[in-house]
Amino acid sequence: MYATTIPPLQRSLTALARILTKSESHCTDHKIAPEVLLQSRLFPDMLPLVRQVQLTCDFATRLNARLAGTTVPSHPDTETTFAALRARIAAVQAELANATPAQFTEAATRSITFRAGPSEMTLSGQDYYAHYALPQFYFHMSMTYAILRHNGVGLGKRDFMAAPEA
Amino acid sequence: MYATTIPPLQRSLTALARILTKSESHCTDHKIAPEVLLQSRLFPDMLPLVRQVQLTCDFATRLNARLAGTTVPSHPDTETTFAALRARIAAVQAELANATPAQFTEAATRSITFRAGPSEMTLSGQDYYAHYALPQFYFHMSMTYAILRHNGVGLGKRDFMAAPEA
Repeated sequence: MYATTIPPLQRSLTALARILTKSESHCTDHKIAPEVLLQSRLFPDMLPLVRQVQLTCDFATRLNARLAGTTVPSHPDTETTFAALRARIAAVQAELANATPAQFTEAATRSITFRAGPSEMTLSGQDYYAHYALPQFYFHMSMTYAILRHNGVGLGKRDFMAAPEA
Repeated sequence: MYATTIPPLQRSLTALARILTKSESHCTDHKIAPEVLLQSRLFPDMLPLVRQVQLTCDFATRLNARLAGTTVPSHPDTETTFAALRARIAAVQAELANATPAQFTEAATRSITFRAGPSEMTLSGQDYYAHYALPQFYFHMSMTYAILRHNGVGLGKRDFMAAPEA
């Protein structure tokens, strides 16, 4: 499962870091306080941009660690700037770079127990990947994109997709 | 690749159909003309809701057919109602129900050539799945969700994720 997990996460997080750089430039160009954009939401009961980025990072961190069978690294959600969010992404990229295909040999059948909202769930590695963590990863990355686009940041789907080969 | 492709697509499309049913009820309850919501966008140069749903369906159709090595079914983009979009989803669900694990035995290494925007690309089945079609599927499903949430439809991430087992 290494090939269908790690390189796509790496490519997407590279895209996400670039999107945040463009967003920060957009703030400078349009005299927008970055903290305003970082706290923007699509609807009052949805999470703000900063949380969407943190959650995108978290699902990559967890997907990698749980499939590889290693301890899930902890990242406190303390970021308040675009630079700090890019540093968070860089930390996750370092985790992904340390993953080896050998760690994923048993990933599909590994039993994974995790908290999902109020309850605890157990899934095989394959189901955790395909039914839970990957959809969540793309969901929060898409919400990040949606908030930014809605606020006028000049992005296109190419920025979301990046190149198929990183 | 059957297990990481077909059941997650089936579960997500079931979730998408339910989301559209809730959205139609929201229109009735709040005296919103359904065609107004179907044409809503997050930003003027983004695609409207109806196109986001059509594209979500298209990526499921193409992912299934291309990995299975069958002809990609054609679905003209003629839907103008929530009911018609649910019928489109049902048609894709029928395609997915016809897919068999045996068709996917060679899916990972199958060479897949497809149009991506202005250019033609060739990827292995595994890379087409992980780097292209699955991110696109979740992207357009997420944009559907984002447009609806931004317009006040009462949805939560549980509606997007559905249950891990369909």
